[in-house]
This record gives sequence, structure tokens and C-alpha cells, in this order.
Amino acid sequence: MHQGSQNEAEDGELDLGLARLDLGRGSRTGVPEAVLAEGKSDDELAVILDALVQRGQPFLATRFGEDRASRLLGGRPGLVFERRARVVHSAELPLIRNLAQVPIIVSAGTSDRGVAEEAYWTFRVSGIEAGVVADVGVAGLHRLERRIHELRRAAVILVVAGMEGALASVLAGLVPCPLIAVPTSVGYGASFGGVAALLGMLNSCAPGVTVCNIDNGFGAAAAAIKMLNMTSLSEKP
Amino acid sequence: MHQGSQNEAEDGELDLGLARLDLGRGSRTGVPEAVLAEGKSDDELAVILDALVQRGQPFLATRFGEDRASRLLGGRPGLVFERRARVVHSAELPLIRNLAQVPIIVSAGTSDRGVAEEAYWTFRVSGIEAGVVADVGVAGLHRLERRIHELRRAAVILVVAGMEGALASVLAGLVPCPLIAVPTSVGYGASFGGVAALLGMLNSCAPGVTVCNIDNGFGAAAAAIKMLNMTSLSEKP
Amino acid sequence: MHQGSQNEAEDGELDLGLARLDLGRGSRTGVPEAVLAEGKSDDELAVILDALVQRGQPFLATRFGEDRASRLLGGRPGLVFERRARVVHSAELPLIRNLAQVPIIVSAGTSDRGVAEEAYWTFRVSGIEAGVVADVGVAGLHRLERRIHELRRAAVILVVAGMEGALASVLAGLVPCPLIAVPTSVGYGASFGGVAALLGMLNSCAPGVTVCNIDNGFGAAAAAIKMLNMTSLSEKP
Amino acid sequence: MHQGSQNEAEDGELDLGLARLDLGRGSRTGVPEAVLAEGKSDDELAVILDALVQRGQPFLATRFGEDRASRLLGGRPGLVFERRARVVHSAELPLIRNLAQVPIIVSAGTSDRGVAEEAYWTFRVSGIEAGVVADVGVAGLHRLERRIHELRRAAVILVVAGMEGALASVLAGLVPCPLIAVPTSVGYGASFGGVAALLGMLNSCAPGVTVCNIDNGFGAAAAAIKMLNMTSLSEKP
Amino acid sequence: MHQGSQNEAEDGELDLGLARLDLGRGSRTGVPEAVLAEGKSDDELAVILDALVQRGQPFLATRFGEDRASRLLGGRPGLVFERRARVVHSAELPLIRNLAQVPIIVSAGTSDRGVAEEAYWTFRVSGIEAGVVADVGVAGLHRLERRIHELRRAAVILVVAGMEGALASVLAGLVPCPLIAVPTSVGYGASFGGVAALLGMLNSCAPGVTVCNIDNGFGAAAAAIKMLNMTSLSEKP
Amino acid sequence: MHQGSQNEAEDGELDLGLARLDLGRGSRTGVPEAVLAEGKSDDELAVILDALVQRGQPFLATRFGEDRASRLLGGRPGLVFERRARVVHSAELPLIRNLAQVPIIVSAGTSDRGVAEEAYWTFRVSGIEAGVVADVGVAGLHRLERRIHELRRAAVILVVAGMEGALASVLAGLVPCPLIAVPTSVGYGASFGGVAALLGMLNSCAPGVTVCNIDNGFGAAAAAIKMLNMTSLSEKP
Amino acid sequence: MHQGSQNEAEDGELDLGLARLDLGRGSRTGVPEAVLAEGKSDDELAVILDALVQRGQPFLATRFGEDRASRLLGGRPGLVFERRARVVHSAELPLIRNLAQVPIIVSAGTSDRGVAEEAYWTFRVSGIEAGVVADVGVAGLHRLERRIHELRRAAVILVVAGMEGALASVLAGLVPCPLIAVPTSVGYGASFGGVAALLGMLNSCAPGVTVCNIDNGFGAAAAAIKMLNMTSLSEKP
Amino acid sequence: MHQGSQNEAEDGELDLGLARLDLGRGSRTGVPEAVLAEGKSDDELAVILDALVQRGQPFLATRFGEDRASRLLGGRPGLVFERRARVVHSAELPLIRNLAQVPIIVSAGTSDRGVAEEAYWTFRVSGIEAGVVADVGVAGLHRLERRIHELRRAAVILVVAGMEGALASVLAGLVPCPLIAVPTSVGYGASFGGVAALLGMLNSCAPGVTVCNIDNGFGAAAAAIKMLNMTSLSEKP
Repeated sequence: MHQGSQNEAEDGELDLGLARLDLGRGSRTGVPEAVLAEGKSDDELAVILDALVQRGQPFLATRFGEDRASRLLGGRPGLVFERRARVVHSAELPLIRNLAQVPIIVSAGTSDRGVAEEAYWTFRVSGIEAGVVADVGVAGLHRLERRIHELRRAAVILVVAGMEGALASVLAGLVPCPLIAVPTSVGYGASFGGVAALLGMLNSCAPGVTVCNIDNGFGAAAAAIKMLNMTSLSEKP
Repeated sequence: MHQGSQNEAEDGELDLGLARLDLGRGSRTGVPEAVLAEGKSDDELAVILDALVQRGQPFLATRFGEDRASRLLGGRPGLVFERRARVVHSAELPLIRNLAQVPIIVSAGTSDRGVAEEAYWTFRVSGIEAGVVADVGVAGLHRLERRIHELRRAAVILVVAGMEGALASVLAGLVPCPLIAVPTSVGYGASFGGVAALLGMLNSCAPGVTVCNIDNGFGAAAAAIKMLNMTSLSEKP
Repeated sequence: MHQGSQNEAEDGELDLGLARLDLGRGSRTGVPEAVLAEGKSDDELAVILDALVQRGQPFLATRFGEDRASRLLGGRPGLVFERRARVVHSAELPLIRNLAQVPIIVSAGTSDRGVAEEAYWTFRVSGIEAGVVADVGVAGLHRLERRIHELRRAAVILVVAGMEGALASVLAGLVPCPLIAVPTSVGYGASFGGVAALLGMLNSCAPGVTVCNIDNGFGAAAAAIKMLNMTSLSEKP
Repeated sequence: MHQGSQNEAEDGELDLGLARLDLGRGSRTGVPEAVLAEGKSDDELAVILDALVQRGQPFLATRFGEDRASRLLGGRPGLVFERRARVVHSAELPLIRNLAQVPIIVSAGTSDRGVAEEAYWTFRVSGIEAGVVADVGVAGLHRLERRIHELRRAAVILVVAGMEGALASVLAGLVPCPLIAVPTSVGYGASFGGVAALLGMLNSCAPGVTVCNIDNGFGAAAAAIKMLNMTSLSEKP
Repeated sequence: MHQGSQNEAEDGELDLGLARLDLGRGSRTGVPEAVLAEGKSDDELAVILDALVQRGQPFLATRFGEDRASRLLGGRPGLVFERRARVVHSAELPLIRNLAQVPIIVSAGTSDRGVAEEAYWTFRVSGIEAGVVADVGVAGLHRLERRIHELRRAAVILVVAGMEGALASVLAGLVPCPLIAVPTSVGYGASFGGVAALLGMLNSCAPGVTVCNIDNGFGAAAAAIKMLNMTSLSEKP
Repeated sequence: MHQGSQNEAEDGELDLGLARLDLGRGSRTGVPEAVLAEGKSDDELAVILDALVQRGQPFLATRFGEDRASRLLGGRPGLVFERRARVVHSAELPLIRNLAQVPIIVSAGTSDRGVAEEAYWTFRVSGIEAGVVADVGVAGLHRLERRIHELRRAAVILVVAGMEGALASVLAGLVPCPLIAVPTSVGYGASFGGVAALLGMLNSCAPGVTVCNIDNGFGAAAAAIKMLNMTSLSEKP
Repeated sequence: MHQGSQNEAEDGELDLGLARLDLGRGSRTGVPEAVLAEGKSDDELAVILDALVQRGQPFLATRFGEDRASRLLGGRPGLVFERRARVVHSAELPLIRNLAQVPIIVSAGTSDRGVAEEAYWTFRVSGIEAGVVADVGVAGLHRLERRIHELRRAAVILVVAGMEGALASVLAGLVPCPLIAVPTSVGYGASFGGVAALLGMLNSCAPGVTVCNIDNGFGAAAAAIKMLNMTSLSEKP
Repeated sequence: MHQGSQNEAEDGELDLGLARLDLGRGSRTGVPEAVLAEGKSDDELAVILDALVQRGQPFLATRFGEDRASRLLGGRPGLVFERRARVVHSAELPLIRNLAQVPIIVSAGTSDRGVAEEAYWTFRVSGIEAGVVADVGVAGLHRLERRIHELRRAAVILVVAGMEGALASVLAGLVPCPLIAVPTSVGYGASFGGVAALLGMLNSCAPGVTVCNIDNGFGAAAAAIKMLNMTSLSEKP
């Protein structure tokens, strides 16, 4: 199977032989540049990451295992690995946006924090500093209530929760901003790798919750960034 | 297929030909006498109900459709039909127990009330008047909070909820008494006839929740009655 | 089972005996007043609808069958039934918002239009006139391309599609605004009542798609309305 | 992502930076203090366990792998590892309750004993010595019958069984006390990791069985402890 | 679509135009002649039944609805309808076999009797009078024990049970003969139309149980008849 | 958790402390003595195997991994390990039965042979030499046809097949003897670990097929042995 | 929701207000013009069918219920209803193609014929007369063998089968032409509405089988027609 | 279990003792000689590969892990390992067919390339050089459009895609040739190992798509080769 040489088309497509990147997606759809590491070989990833570093724009690689990081990041100073989030990002991440209201990432249990941090770094790659409220599972509702004042001022909320994922429903009944639910695979037995939380969130009795794939912190943040990009939403004069 | 004649064995088995009743189960296990109407023909049910009325003890028939009730209850004054609960019970239901703390049935939405009432009548057939707290779904948490003082004094709580069933997790983090969760088939789409609520409840992040089959208000009340029957649980002197 | 008399608490809870309404939810969370008709009896619905009409605010009842409409709407001039959308709404629906960019509801096939119209009326009850782009399934991509200029200017897009639901992925790669995917139960065999579309949308290769429950046009519109309510998202000066 | 310093709120919340503990849950809901080890990193667990040891109250960490135990327990004399149960508990576990009737943990096969022992240690952490009846699967009913006299005197019974989980139904028809069924993942093929046992127990033909998540020995014991805490259930004079 | 005329091939194939029958199957495989009524139109069934009556051998049509019976059986004296079993059989069913040990059909609940009777008539069409033991569900084990002496002498046992299907495991541990388990769709909620019983039976902890499709009383009896046809199994001299 | 000392009850129950054996099962139900190795620790298995060797009767341990065999079998001359079948059996396996017609194990592909051999050794432990017909998958029907004469003389046939499991249906239409289908987990993708074969076999269009759990060669042979034990099936004189 | 007036774009899109047709699809992709009736209202269908009749090209409407046909076809002589196939087609269906080798539709049981006929009419609308081989299920292999000579000369074969769908595997091992498998929903219990046949066909041990959605006779024929359209496949000189 | 000696029957069956090969399948059905490595032991594979090399015809072994390749390929110069495709093929692969129109393999993402390459080598073993179009996922539709001219000239297209698999629907609406969809297991969470893509492809709104098992690049190519073998499809003169 022959492979094309590296050249970049005017619509942003970059052919690296082992892979082909769609570098125009960011400008077309408003989401940050990102690579899903899982399912790619070390060789493929190395080629992709080197090309992205060379390009000089912030980017993210998700679902990046610790072993792989130790194999690939030595001698690549342009890359930084975040262990809990399992992401690699470009070393330079300027905070280019100063929002009046920030997105807030809310997570239910300690084990959900990894997915929450994947979302956090997705915001950071887009130049946004998101708020973080961790360990406010519904089994101890007072924890959530203590933070509710802060949460009511959020621009958009990401709810990251495994097990039954009830936090999404509870929070959606309390805040006016959009709420994106991220089910996680935290749990065991009949959680079926996140299916229980996913179904719970899809069936939320509080209207207006939308849902991402299981463990998809990146996708949830990307959706939130699209909302934050809605700059001309104000009413017509 | 020949059928035996009607006679009652000493261990409480009663052979009605079309069906055979286990009348000793109540004394053996402490649950009320009950018949599942669904899956039985009108003929079978009529024979069973007549035998139970004749016996003179309180009993319950569950999942009893309205059409069937209009066919079978005419001319049977010993039977009463409860439409919302879809149960038939014996006309005489003495309140024989006066509990210091009562069981309370909590339901999330209006559509969950039918299952809650099946539980209610199961308690009544056992001589117990249960408390009822309806329409306290987690999308409006203040509704639940307004009743929380009352709920904290319950002997045992039944949580009846469809959709994502989050009410079980929320309540289990707030009360000290045992909590039995009853998922209902209320919902649509990815609720899959109650599976979403069932999984949510099985994966409750609040420990100590136990779960019944979908829509099984009777079973949940039966379990609660077994708990209320624990009469000698007090510590040894 | 005794039932409370009708009285409204200061937090907006209204007890109607057969049901209890959470009338404060709109102001708390920004979504329109809505009732899920499915799973409620005619009696319960009638009591609820009469109370809502009396209150004089716009509202919606969803999943309202045609038979039920013919039973309940005679003699209730304050209510209007929309057959394709299977909703009942209050007769008065003022257009109170004049947006610079409107939400657009995109549907894939003719059979998906009912769900799209449920979303349409949810916007209308909130005082918003949404755009509608119908029958642009991906099997004829030119249909979508003809409308893409219009779609790129949307404030937010709802994609309503059954079968494989591919429209969400295709569109998400073409537009910068947030995109809410609504899987429908249109299809047969291995569509499993909308599961194929639901999974397809959750796994969209285009980042930033969020998903609602199957056939949940109301919920998608409610989420979009929450986004449109984000009034102070502009950057800090 | 910055992390808060360690401080304990008056409602029992303790912020450890890497995790936040809800230390008030025990007094609020009556269940023992417990940590789910699975899904947490060694670092997170170490911080949590050290904080719990320092606090001086009995506690439990469940689903604690043998490898992890050998990494973390050296030099921590306040912790004890139970291999079969895969739990770590505080070294001091006073037996503070002397019950007239004890809870009994019944398990079906040798492979189910691990889950049964997780339940056993949950009781111990709460100061209760539970009874244990092992290897009484229904394929050899005489084994169960030999113990039935003992089981009929139990305060509450936990049934731990994998494969088809039939033991729950059989036992529930024989004893008057509440019965909590714990499906285990023991089995292969169409046991689907415990789903067969879970469904079997949810559909028990013997009324009054309630069910926990698969392999959730801790949760079942926590529910039983809540029942044992029902101290004022005696009838009103 | 043209249709062939009626003619019978020497290997027993009979072409009826609307359908083609495999009349040699009985002699080839030892099972009784049977037709699955479900999924066929009235026209197709009428043609098939008339051909079978004309042939003069015993036969069975299963899953035959009551409505259809009233439409098709008038004026066809060669056919008999059994309502509970939902089968139609040829009027003449000689008892041609006189077995030293008979097959016994054991059913758990009253609602399982229909499937049990489908099995019964399958035996009858093969000239065998099967034993019947009904309503011996495991929730009342004493019922089963009372019949155990009789069951231990069976040639082969069919266990017909819905809900959790535990009867198969219990009985398989008590008897030496082969045991064929027939899960039924009796149950609700998480019984999922018989899946719970099916999985329970496939995972029976008692070895040597084999299983049929849900509600397949005919198939179970056919398998048992094949066993009864094993005439030369005796040890070599 | 204290453990009882080793003693054998008169009904064959043997308490080994770490496990309890039901040694009376063989005589009660006619199946060979067997232990499921999976899910037991090395310690537990060692105790059980030593007790069985000491007893001097043939026995089998199934699902016995190669690693475990190398750990446990050294210095235990009474045990033999069969790699492909993943079983351990007692060294002495006398052929005590000389059948006029033998059971035959038919397998579809090379990868199914392991499960077929588990069945083979189960027969051997019971003193029976089964026939073996391997690699006769339906994709090459002539392979099966070449052996059909031999198969038509079998006492009972075990069909072991993965993927779509069609071999069971094809063979069941060709032979008169009972046929037990054993789905295997051979396959990938939508075979779902054997579910495709399991469902295919349960829905066999050829009547009289019964089915075992996925990969359960032992169970299928145990069922066949029960059939071979039907010694008094001959017609009454 | 306003609706556009009827006008046809140059790429074949026709806006009918209630629906929009993609009339260019046939020329673009080579499949016949077809409408899925299910999920559309009578009004929508009537508008679509009238427009198609007026256009004068052959077309098909699938999944067309008998009731609907009696409501809509009166007074529309340009339409013909085929009851078993549940299709409506245009009255004029010229046979425009005279193939050296024809496609053959093979079906397993009588109940599968409806789906087979849907495929038949799809070919007819494309001007092709397909061969038909019905009732050759694998339980009677000789039926299939009698037709195998004819089948080996087919251009392409459609295999229509429910239950376990084994016919696809068997046939695929016997013929050289492409084979398209169509699982049907024929069956009950664990056939799960065609899932068993679908999985069986996807996992066929005979390579080169491709599969359509359950009951999708139309789609299978459309795929076959695409193959027959491969006119320039001959080797280069 | 005794094993036959090696000998080849006239219908192409070759008995290797550890396995039996069906060498006549290629001529019977037109698909290339192939072995599924997964599920076979090293010993079995070595025997099979050696026999195939000795025979001197091109062949393929699929799902061949890298570790196994390093164990088995040393000293076997007749075998070549392709890492990305995870296949081993015979060293000699002559290009024996010179097609006027070639098959083209289209893949959506970089991670799907392995499955695409399995298909590529299947064509090569059959003497065909297939075209390859990689990384044209629908999230960047312009990528696909750039290649559409080339794709419209294909003889047949294989679409290899994971996640939601939307590429199949999009492409099927654009090209006239047959299209075979290959879902891959690329994705996570609710992709369920390829189920989302599989369902999406089965429910394609573009008619005429047929589908293979998940990750089955070999099977898709085999089906395409069967189509390319349709040499006499041209219309009759």
C-alpha cells in the first residue's frame, strides 16, 4: 500500500503519509485542534505530533497512555503530558480569552476527575480557563449546595459523573445555563462501562440536558466552546 | 390434561384445578397474600379470587387491567378495584398495626403514582397505613427538601421513579432509614421501558440502596413489610 | 390514598391533588413550561391543562395523541392541538424575542418531521421563531449543500434524524455553531427504535455534537433555548 | 488544575486536594465509612487512607487489589488487608453491637466467597459479627436444608450467588426475615459478568427480595446495617 | 410471482403453491409433524392444514391464536383446537406407545401452563401420554418436594418456568434423568420477555441442563421424543 | 471469618474449610464429579484436588489454565492436564461402559476443538469413549456429508460451533438422535463472545435441538451422559 | 410551520410541501425509485404517490399496510398493491432488461416469503425478472440440494431467512456468485425480532456474505441491481 | 483424542491432524484461500501454514498478531507479515487480473487503516490491485469531495469506518457502483466495540449498502471479489 508524500492543501488538509490531517477543521467549526491517540500506532502519532508542533498552533492529543507518553515525549520539548487527564498538549497555551462568565466543570467522584481534566485541557488549548468543582456527588447534596451560588453564574456547565450519573439531573434543575452531561465509565457490575450513567443522563427528568459519549471530556468541552463562540446572539435592536 | 379437584393440604396448598395456591406462604415468609393477574385467563382468575374471598383473609391481585375488572368484579361484592394502582383487593382491610414509625412511599412524577399506589395497597392488605409523598422529582429539589424532615422519621422508604431514577440516590444520601428503590417504566426512547431507571438505581452512588424489578410496587412493599416484621432486633441486654 | 387540595407555594409549586406542578422551574432554569402527556390519565391531564390555562402563561404539552386531543380539547378554547407535532399549546404564543441569529431545526426525512415540529413549538412557546430545513438526508448530499449558506449563519442547529443519524456528523463538520442531535425512532429492524441513530450521534466523528433522548424534540429545543439565554457571554472589556 | 489545601468543614467534608471526603455521611445515613479503591490512583488512595487512619474511626476500602495492597500497606500499621475479600480496613474494629438476632451471609459457591467476605468486613467495620453460611448452592438442596433452622432465626439474610442466582428465590420462600440478593460475576458465557444472576434475582418469584449491584457485597451489608439501625420499629403501645 | 402446482416428491416434499411442506422430516429425524402458525396468513394455513388432514397422519399446528381458530376450524372436523395450549391438532391421536417410564412436564406457575400444554400435545401427537406436574414454583419448595418421588422415576423431565426460571436448577440437582428447560415469557419488567429465565437456565449451577427457546414447548417435547426414540442404548453384551 | 474442619457428612458433603464439596451429586443426578477451576484461588483448588485424588474416584476439573497447571500439577502424579481441553483429570480413567451406540462430538472449526475436547474428557471420566468428528463446518457441506452415515448411528450428538453456529440446524435435520448444541466463543466482532452462535442454536429451524451455555463442553457431555443413563426406556411389554 | 410550494429543481429535487423527493437519486446511484410508507401519514403518502404517478416512471412504495392500501388505492388506477409483499408499485412495469444470468431470491420458510416478494418487486420495478426459490430451509437440506444446479448459475443470490438464518452460510459455501443475506423477523422468543438471524449472517463462516437490515428485501434487491449495473467489469484486453 | 494422518481428498479436503483444510473452497465459491489465525494455537497454525506454502498457491492468514509473527515467521521465507494489516501472506502474489475498473477501499480515519489493509491484501492474494482512499471521514466532507470523481469510476467500493460509520451512507448517495460497508471497532464508550458503526451501516438511509461483520476487511474483499467474478452479466443479445 503506497503512501503519499507530505503536502498541505489549501483547505488545510495535510498529508503525512501514515495519516492525513484536517487542519482546516478548527476554522470551519470552531473546535480546538485535537488528535485521538487511541487506535494509532506510535509511529503514526509521532509523525502527527511533530507536524503539529512544527505548525506552531495550540493542540491536544487525547486518550494518551502513560506508557506511550514515556516512549514518545523524551526529546520533544514542545509537548507536555498531563497524567491524570491522559492528554498531551503543546507547550505553549496562551490564555487568549477573558470571559465575563466562565465554563465550569463539575465532577461527581474522585475517579471522575480524569475525564474532567481532559475537558479542562481542551478549554485551555482554546485559550480559556475553566472553573473546576470536584467531588460533589449527589450522595452528599450539601457539597453541591455549598457551591450552587458559584455554579448559577457559570456560562455553561459540564457535569462529569459515572455510576448512575444523577448529578446531571439534580444540577439541571438548579441552574439556568446550558448543561452538558458527560457519563464516565466509573463504576462496576451493572454500570456496564458507563452505560448506566449514559442512560441516566439521556433520560434526565430536568429538561435541557444534552449528553456526550462516555468518558468524552474533550467532546463536551468542544461543544461548550462552540457555545462560547456564539458572539452575536444578543437580541436585535 | 386432567385437573385435580379442589382440596387444601395442611401446609396451605390449595388445588383449584385451573391453578394451585400456596396459602401457607404468608405465614412462612411474612408477605401478604397476592396474585399476579397478568398472564392468567379470566377463568383462572375468577376461580382464584372466589377461593380467596371465601377464605376470609385480606389479599391482593396486582396488574389487574380496567377491562378485566369490569368483566370480573360485577356481582362480587367482596372485591374492590383500585383503578390507578391497577389492583383488586378484598373488601375488608383492617388496620391491624399501629407503628411508631411508618413506611413512606415517595414518587418522582405523576406518572409514577400508579406503581406507588400498588405499593400503598400492599401495605394496606398487611394492615399498615403507609405515608405518601408524591411528585418530588429531583428536577425541583426544593420539593423534596420541603418534605425531608418528615422523610427522616420514616421506618423505611420506597422510592418510586422512572426516567433516570435519580431520586433514589439523592434521598439515600439524606436519610438514615433503609431505602428500597422501585424503577418504573415511565419514560420513552432510551429509558427502554425502565432499564435506565433500574441501572441508575443499581449503581446508586449512595450506599445501602436495594432495588426491585421495574414497576414492582408490590414486591417493594413486601420487602418493607418483612423489615417491619423484624420485631426482635433490639440489642441484647 | 388521600390527595391534597389545590394551593400554590411561593416557590411555584402548585398542588392539584391528582398532580403537583413545579411552576417555578421556568424562572429557575430558563426552559419553557411543559407537561409530558404520555403516562398520565385523561383526568390528570385535564386538571393540569386547566390550571395552566388559568395561569395565563404560554405552555406546552408533548406526546399528546390525536385521540386524546379529540377527547380533551373540545370546549377548551385556550388550547391548540398540532397534529404532526403531537403537542398541545396555549392559544396565545407571542413572539417576544427578535434574535439576530435564529435557531434552525434540520430534519433528515419526511418521517422525522413530527419530532422536528415538537421542537419548533417548544421554541414558539418560548417566544422564538425557529428556522426549518426539512428532508435533507445525507443520501442526497446536494440537498444539504444547497442550504449550507443559510445553516452557517444559525445561532444553534438541531439535527433531527432517524435510521443511522449520519446527518449530525456531516453537518457538524460544516458549521461553526453548536449542534444538538435528536435521534428519532424512524426506521425498522436493526434501528431498534432509534438506538442506531442514538449511538451514531453519540459517536460522531465530528467533535462538539451533543445528543438528546430519542424523539426528544422538546428537550433539544429546551437546551437550545438555554444557550440563547446566555446573554452575557461577550468577552470582558 | 490547582488543588485546595486540606481542611475539614463542619458538615464533615474534608478536602485532601487530590480528593474530598464526605465524613458526615455515616452519621447522616447510618452506613460505615468506606472508600472504593478501584478507579483511584495509588497517590489518591494513600492520601485518603492516611487521613482516615489519623481520624481514628473504623473504615473500609473495597475492591482493593492484592498488588496495590503490597505497594501501599507496608509501613502503615493502621491498615489490614483481607485478601479474599479484597478489602483494607482499619486495624481496630471493636465489636460494639450485641444483637439478639444476627445478619447471616449465605453464599452459593466457593467462588462467591470473596463477595461474601466483602460483606462480612462491612459488618465488622460497623461493629457487628455476621453469621456465615457458605457453599449452599441449590444444585444440592440438602446442604441448604441442613442450615435452614439457623437461617430462619436470622435478623436479615444476604444471599450471594453467581451463575443463575437461584438461591435467592429458594431461600426467600423459606425464611421470614428480609433478604438482600447480591448477584456475583461468577460464571462464564451467557452469565455476562453477572447479568444472568442479576436478572434472576430481580425477577424472583418469591416476593420481597431486593437486589444490589453485581459483586456489591459492601452495598448489601450497608443496606442490612440500615435495617438493623431501625431501633424504634416496635408497635406503638 | 408464479406458484407451482401441488405435487409430492418421493423424499416427502409436498408443493402446495402457497407453501411447501417437508413431509419426510418425521421419518428422517424422529420428531412429530408440526406447523408454526405464527407468521403465516390464514390462506396459507388453510391450504397446509387441509393437506395434512387429507394425508391422515397425526400432526400439530402451534402458536395458533384463538381468533384464527374460530375463523379456520368451522367446517373442518378433522381439526381440534386446544385453547390454553394455543395448538390445533388432528382429531385422531392414537396412543401408540406404552412406556415403562414416562416424560413429565413440570411447570412453575399458573401462567406457565400454556407452554406446558403445548409440550403435552406434542407428546400426544407422537402417541405418548406425558405426566404433568403444575404450580411447583421454588417459592414454595414443599410443593416440589411432595412430588419428588414421582419425578425421580421420570424418563425425562421438561421444566417450564418464567420469571427467574430457578426451578430448572433446583430440580436438576434432585433427579437423575435428563432435564430440558423451557424458559417462558411470563414475567414483566426486567424479565425482558423471557430473557431472565433463559439466562438463568443456561447458567444453571446444576450440570446437565439443556435449554430451548423461550416459550418453545413444542421444541422441548420434540427433543424429549428424540431421547425416547433411543431404543438401542443398552450396553453391549 | 472462621473455617470449619474437614469432615464428610453421610449425604456426601465434604467440608474442606476453604471449600465444601457435594460428593453425593454424582449418585443423585448421574453426572461425573467435576470442579470449575475458574474463579477459585490456587489454594482452594489444591485442597479440593487433593481431597478428590485421595477419594480414588475419577473426576474432572474444567477451565484450568496452562499457567495454573504448571503451578499445581508438579508433585501430584494423580492428576493429568490436557492442554487443548484445559482440563485436569484423575490419572485413572477406566472405560467401564461398552455402548452399542456411542455419543459423537462434532465440531465446526479448528478453534472449536478445545471445547469439543472438554466434552470428550467429561465422557472419559464417566467411563465412555465418545466419537469425534472435527472440522465439518457448513461452509464446506461435503465434509459433513462424508461423515453423515457414521453420524446417523450415533446415540446422541454434541454439536460444538462458534460464529453463526449453523452446523446445529443443518445436522439436526439429518439425524434421528438427540442433538445438544454447544455454542462457542470462537469468532469476533458481532459474534459477541458466542452470543451469535447461542442465539442461532436457540432459534434452530430444525426442531428438537437443545442448547448449553457458551463454551460449556462439560455441561453438554453431562446432559448426554444423563441420556445414556436412561436404561429402562424400552416400551412396556 | 410554513411549507414550500411544489417545484422541481434541476438536480431532481421535488418539493411537495408535505415532503420533498430526491428524484435524481436513481440516475446518481442506480437504484430504483422507492418510498418507505411506514412513518408517513396518509396525507403525505398520497401527495408523494400522485406526484410519482404523474411523472410516469416505474416506482415502488414499501412497507405498505393492507389497511392503508384500501384507504389510498381506490380511484388511483396507476397504482397496484401486492398484499404479501406489502408494496405498492406503478401499474406499468416494463421488463427492460434481458439478462444472461438472473438474480435469484431464495427464502427459507413460508413466513419469509413476504420479504422475498418485496425484493422481487424491487427487481421488477427496475425491469428485471428475478428467479424465486422458496421454502428451502436448512432443516431439510435435500430441498436445497435439488435446486443447487439452478442456483449455481445465478448472477447474484438473495438469501431471505429468519430464525437462525443458517441458509446464508450453507448456500455461500456452495455457489460462486455474490450472496446478499436478508435476515427476517420471523421467529419468536430469543430471535428478538430478527437479531438472531442478523447476527448469524454477519458471522457466517462462509466468506463473502454481505448483509442487509432485518426484513429489508428492498435494500437487498437495490444492492443486487447495483451489481447487475456493473457493465464494464470485464478484464482489460 | 486420536488424530488422523495427513491426506488430501479429491474434493480438496486436507487432513493435517491438528486441523483439516477445505482447499476446494476457492474453486467452489471464488474466494481466496484464507486462514483465521485467531483462536488457533501456534502449533496448529504452523502446520497449516507449512501445508499451504508447500501447495504453492497464494493464500492469506488474517488477524495475525505481531508477537505470533515473530515466533512463527523466522525460517519460513515463503511467508510475509504485514504489520498494520495483521496478515501473513504467501511470498508470491502475482497480479493476474487487469481490470478495466478497480475496486477501491475507502477508509474514514487513520485508525481504520488496519482493517482497510486487510482488505487490500485479500485483493492482492486474488491477483487484484485495489485502489486506496484513506482518511476521508465525513467530519471534513471536502476531503471526500476531492476524491469523488475517482470514486465514481470504481467497480465496487469498500467503506471502512468506525465510530458512527456515516461515511457509508454519504458515499452510497454519491456513487453508482455497489458499496460494501465494513464497520470497525475504532471508537470508545458507546461505540461498543463497533456496534454503533455496524448499526449505522445496517440502517443506512441510502439504499443498496450491504454490510460485513465488524473489522472484517477480509470478508468484504471476498464479497467484492465474488462480484468481480460475475463475468457473464452483460445483457443477452
